Formats: sequence, structure tokens, C-alpha cells
Amino acid sequence: MPQFLELLPRQEALDTFIHNLPIPHPKMEQTRTIDSNGRILLEDIISPELSPPFSRSTVDGYAVIAADTFGASDSMPVYLPVTGEVAMGKPADFSLLPGCTCLIHTGGMLPEGADAVVMLEDTQIASPNEIEFFKSVAAGENIITAGEDVRPGDVVIKAGSRMGPAEIGGLLALGILDVMTAQPPLVGILSSGDEIIPPQCQPQPGQIRDINSYSLQALIQRYGGQAKLYGIAPDELDALERIMKRAFEECDMLIVTAGSSASTRDLTSTVIRQLGKPGILVHGVRIRPGKPTILAVCDGKPVIGLPGNPVSALVIASFFAIPALEHLMGKTQTTPRPVLKAELTLNVPSVTGREDFIPVHLFLAKDGYKAEPIFFKSNMIFSLARSNGLLRIPADAVGLSAGESVEVYLYL
Amino acid sequence: MPQFLELLPRQEALDTFIHNLPIPHPKMEQTRTIDSNGRILLEDIISPELSPPFSRSTVDGYAVIAADTFGASDSMPVYLPVTGEVAMGKPADFSLLPGCTCLIHTGGMLPEGADAVVMLEDTQIASPNEIEFFKSVAAGENIITAGEDVRPGDVVIKAGSRMGPAEIGGLLALGILDVMTAQPPLVGILSSGDEIIPPQCQPQPGQIRDINSYSLQALIQRYGGQAKLYGIAPDELDALERIMKRAFEECDMLIVTAGSSASTRDLTSTVIRQLGKPGILVHGVRIRPGKPTILAVCDGKPVIGLPGNPVSALVIASFFAIPALEHLMGKTQTTPRPVLKAELTLNVPSVTGREDFIPVHLFLAKDGYKAEPIFFKSNMIFSLARSNGLLRIPADAVGLSAGESVEVYLYL
Repeated sequence: MPQFLELLPRQEALDTFIHNLPIPHPKMEQTRTIDSNGRILLEDIISPELSPPFSRSTVDGYAVIAADTFGASDSMPVYLPVTGEVAMGKPADFSLLPGCTCLIHTGGMLPEGADAVVMLEDTQIASPNEIEFFKSVAAGENIITAGEDVRPGDVVIKAGSRMGPAEIGGLLALGILDVMTAQPPLVGILSSGDEIIPPQCQPQPGQIRDINSYSLQALIQRYGGQAKLYGIAPDELDALERIMKRAFEECDMLIVTAGSSASTRDLTSTVIRQLGKPGILVHGVRIRPGKPTILAVCDGKPVIGLPGNPVSALVIASFFAIPALEHLMGKTQTTPRPVLKAELTLNVPSVTGREDFIPVHLFLAKDGYKAEPIFFKSNMIFSLARSNGLLRIPADAVGLSAGESVEVYLYL
Repeated sequence: MPQFLELLPRQEALDTFIHNLPIPHPKMEQTRTIDSNGRILLEDIISPELSPPFSRSTVDGYAVIAADTFGASDSMPVYLPVTGEVAMGKPADFSLLPGCTCLIHTGGMLPEGADAVVMLEDTQIASPNEIEFFKSVAAGENIITAGEDVRPGDVVIKAGSRMGPAEIGGLLALGILDVMTAQPPLVGILSSGDEIIPPQCQPQPGQIRDINSYSLQALIQRYGGQAKLYGIAPDELDALERIMKRAFEECDMLIVTAGSSASTRDLTSTVIRQLGKPGILVHGVRIRPGKPTILAVCDGKPVIGLPGNPVSALVIASFFAIPALEHLMGKTQTTPRPVLKAELTLNVPSVTGREDFIPVHLFLAKDGYKAEPIFFKSNMIFSLARSNGLLRIPADAVGLSAGESVEVYLYL
């Protein structure tokens, strides 16, 4: 029988695990900014210049000296002579004289002297050379001043952020064409169990096809890791030890899904104990599915023993393997885990003292999202594939009732 | 000046746009199941076999005929002779005789005759050949029967679903090694505006670097599209027409970000009108940022004119370009957009009748997420890069107050 140490709550288990990992030293590589989508940035990006590089109008209208519009209203318009137009993409190569105005387009460069823009809809052409203003503006109104977004020396994106569309656009706006990002860590994945066969084989009685290697590979890839599959190890100490040691040497992180039987789980923990210090930190989490989770750090590398049931393995990997992977890549800026509030459609029982996750089908009704539980046993992978979220039942709840507002974790 | 037709609310604008797109005929390609992560499945997957292929134990324990345990309790245990053990990965090549039990591991094949399993912790070894049971079980308890997850002929994953880790694992469990998925549609992206220069150039006064081509490219790639950049078109009808027509011919979808000035926006809509029927469906959305959005369907292809401001362009693209892209790929199974409930830290003003989206920084406090608005002008791309969500102010609200529970749309 597996000797479970004290079962830890999920957050405590995660903290124990991550805090025992060394400060990450991800391998860096220079990446073209346009190719950095989804990667983890490993340097603070310091702006070399002002953004915007010059003061610009944020509307279509007339550039003015704000004071010249004071008191303007529908009943008492102000009239100013129009002395020019700012061409797009060109310097405003004239100064605006007091008591004058000039036509300017959204994004146009504010001419020297001007300190505000009146929107076109608050004006009218009184004569070819004169504009009627129905509204006054304050200095700074409808403009964005040079450097208002960013000044030279500002840290615009912090090391440890994940690059996305806005980050990529922002860096290119500053002319930053290359960035240092983390190389995808290599995550070794090993399935074990005498009953497991490769997907291309026809199962004989007592055998089932490997799921975990592939679902975990897809999860690791989605979060920016590189997966290396080590196949299926038999329930035999020498063989398991040989494969696990090789995978541990070759990879930055190791995930082993145990065959589902207790004896196999014991083998996994026996081998993990040999891989390095401090070894197993968490052996059992107060969560369902996924109680028999093993979290270890061996000579600085994260090693995770997952339950063999595919639903447990995938749910638990999302809670523990992904944070470890992100730690390895140097990700420090946290991304909120997307949680949706939904109305539960059925009563769901649970046991106090244990956090439960139940696959649900979320659908949008007139008055918001509804969550319909998909009852399942943890080896039913299609219950997970049919779901689009995981209902969380907190450890202190004795079940949840139909109609209750509940938290549903979304898949990414 | 642009002639805005009636401004439509966001959802109505989206419905009008998508309903005018023809039934999609995505180009299919055969994909290895393990390489299908993130792709849209284009066939119903029908199970060729039972899953699990045989009845299995879901716990470590003793297989029994449930009736033989009736009445078992701590004070009145039941004793059964143990007649064998089911080996993992092997057929249970014996039948369980009435009044007998056998050892079985999680995932082990249930021997013929047995109809339940008693968990190990509810038993005790009374003698080498006899087990003491402290608990009765009902028929079916602690087992998963053959075909309980899936039966032959069941549709296990519907056409139009996005493949993810659970889908990949599930299909491999059934031995399905290849699937038909949608080829990534080709999305043409064109920036326009005399003031826009490529990121590798040094801006002169009045010029700014192109952001939109790259932030939109990253967004399109993230959702499974293939982006083709057509560079920067000048504010000149002939040139814009030439480039837009070429991009329209070559691509499955076209996105043009207008130069920010009104005259450029006019050029864009003029050219879109020439591309095909029915043409422009939505010209202006009751939303901020992003009012001057153009949604068109031309000869069956979606064409989108986005505002030139990078924040508007990216926000609007996430609301309209992504659903159009997913439609082109044949995605029919909806994915809930992740929305987080958070507590607003500051008062935020807004105008009734318009839906507002404001970048916020979400952080986890003791009592849940807080959303701190990042006030911005829509050309400040770093306000977006610094944020990790978009606060939604519904059209019927006159601003939101500090302390209120608000909806924050998460980026994916």
C-alpha cells in the first residue's frame, strides 16, 4: 500500500513544491519580436525613446491654443481664422499663432504653440477662412503629448511576462525587433503500467491504450514546453528505474503517470527517491480527482508522479505541472486563472475537507451561464472531452445545490 | 467625414456580420491526432469500439459478488476465502465462484462472476487464505463496466470542436490516430496611413511605427489562423485599392486597419464597397474603444475595417475578427469567453448607451480579485500591455463605483 504522508490542501501542496525549486536559470535565446508570441520574456524591456514621439491629436478637428476658446458655446460661438492644415505623416512645419486655428486629423502632429484640439463636431466652417467654435477646451484636451505612453528609460514590459499581441505591438512601436526569451524547457513524459499499450496497438483483454502520454504532451506544448515521450514502462523496478533515470538526465522536468495499481505507484515513488535531494515533498493531495499525486524536487529538477487515471492526470497536471513549467521558464508575472461564475443545474454531493473538481458543460442561457455537471469516474476521458470547464467544490462545502452560483475553472 | 450608419450594439453587430457569412467550407486536411492540438475538428468522431474495453476495478481491493458482502460491518464482518489475484494487463482468466473473493488492483480486469469491488481499506487479511470484510457493497460499486464511457457508434467528439489535451487523449484511447481538421485560413492584414512606417525604420516628425500589423498577426495566429502581411498602404485611393484587391483575392479574410484620420477611414470603406456583395453590413459599433469599426462580407469573404488606434484595433479584432476566423474554420462548438468577477478599486465614469472596455490590472487580494483600471487613451499600446484584462462597462451603466463587483474579460 502506498504510504501517504499527510494529505496537503492543493494550494499548500503547490507552494511547498514551487518554493523548493531553485531560482530558475532558463536557457535564453534571442527571438524576433514578431515570433515571440506566447514565449516568456527574460529581460526587462526599457524604452529607448518617447512614445508617442511627438504630441498628436486624438480626434479629427482643429488645433487651438485652449485659452482662445474660453467661453465658446452654442449661443456664443468663438470665431478663429484657419491658417493651415497638418498633413498626416509630416511634421507640423509651422507654429500656430495666438488667435488662429488649423485643421488636424486623428494622429496628426500638433503644431508648435497649440495645446488642445476641438473636435470637428463642435465646430462649423463659418467662411472659407474662418471656423466657428461651439465649445471651449482645456489645455491638453483631445491630444496625447509626446512621451505620455512611455518615456526613455521606462520599463515597459517586465522580465517574466508572457509575450502576447499587445506586447509584440508595443515593442515594435519602439523599434525593438528582437528580445531574449526562454527556450522551451524539455519535459520528459513517461507512462507506466503493465496494462498500458501504445495507441496504435489493439488491446487484448486486460489491456488499455495509453492516453496520458499524449494528453500531457498536448498540455505541455500549449503552455510553451517541449515534450519528449519515453513510452510505456512496465511494472518492474529495474526497467522503470532505467527509463526514469535516463529521462531525468535528459530533461528539465519529469512527469511519470503511474500505472493505476497501488504496487506501480509504489514503484514510482521508490525510483523518485533515488533521483536526488530533497526528493518527495508532497505525497497525496486533499483533492479529487488526484489524491495520489507525488510532487518532488530532485537535484533542482521538478519531478511529478501523477495518478494513472487520465482525468486525474490531466486535472492534476494543470494544477501542478504547468506552474512548475512556467517557473522553469522564468515566468514571474502571474496570469489570473480564468474562472467563470455559473448557475449549477443539479445538486452535487461532496465530502467535507476535500476540494472536488467535476467536469461540467457550460452553456449560455438568457440570464447567464449554467453549469451542468457531467458525472464521471476518473478513468472516463470522454467525460472530460465533453466538458468545457471544471466545477470547483471548495473543501469546506458539503456539496452544492442546484441554482447555486458556482465557480467553474475554464480550460485554456 | 465618415458617414456612420446607425451605430449597432456589439452583439447585434456581431450577429449581423456572422449571419451574412456563407456556410463555411473550410479546406480539410488529414492531421495526426497527436499534432491536432488547437485545431478545429471537421468530422464527427464515432467510436469504433467499447471504452473501457472490459469491466475494470476503480480501486485497489477485492472483487466480490456483491450479495456475498450483504450485512458486513465493523461489528459483524463477513469472511470470504481468497482464490486468486488479477494480474495487471492480463485477462482475468478465471471465474469468481459464489462465496469467494480475489485480489484486484485499480484498472484490473474484473473476473467473470464478480460484480463489485470492496476497497482494501474496508478489509483485513484474516488468514493467508481468508479476507475479512467490514463493509458491504452494492452491485456495480467501485467498478467501471465495459462501454460505460463510450459504446461503438457513439459520437464522442462533434465536428466543429477545438482539439485539446482531453480530446487528443480520448481519440488515442480509441486507437484513432488521424483526424480531419481545418486548414488554417489565410488572413490578409494591411495597415494604412501616410504617418505609418515599418518598425525597423526611425520615425521622422509626424511618423509612427506600425503596431497593428504585428499585434493582429499574433492574435490571428493564436486562434489558429495564418496571417499574411501586406505592409502599409498610403492614404491614396489607387494604391490602397490595388493592395486591398490583391489581398482580398489571395486570402480567405481581410483585415485593414485604417490610418487614424477620417479621410483614410473613408478610403477604406470606399474600397471595401468595391470588393463584392453584400458589402458593408456594419459601419460603426456602439462601443468604446472601436466606434469606427467596419464589418463587411464581400462575395462570401469577411472583410473588417478596424480603427487605426492600436488598442481599439486589438480589442475590436478580438470581438469580431476571431469569431469570423472561427466561423471560417468550421468551429461550431462554442467556447465560453473567460470573464472574471473582480472588485473595482476606483470609480470609472462612462456614457450611457455605449459599452465601454477599459484595460485593468487584475491582482489577487485576500478576498478575491481586484481590478485596477488603467486609464488610457486608445493610442497607448502599453496601457494594454500592462493590463491583464478588460473591464466591461455595460451600455446601461452610468459609470461604475469603487468596491463594485465588475466583469473583467481575460485575454487568452
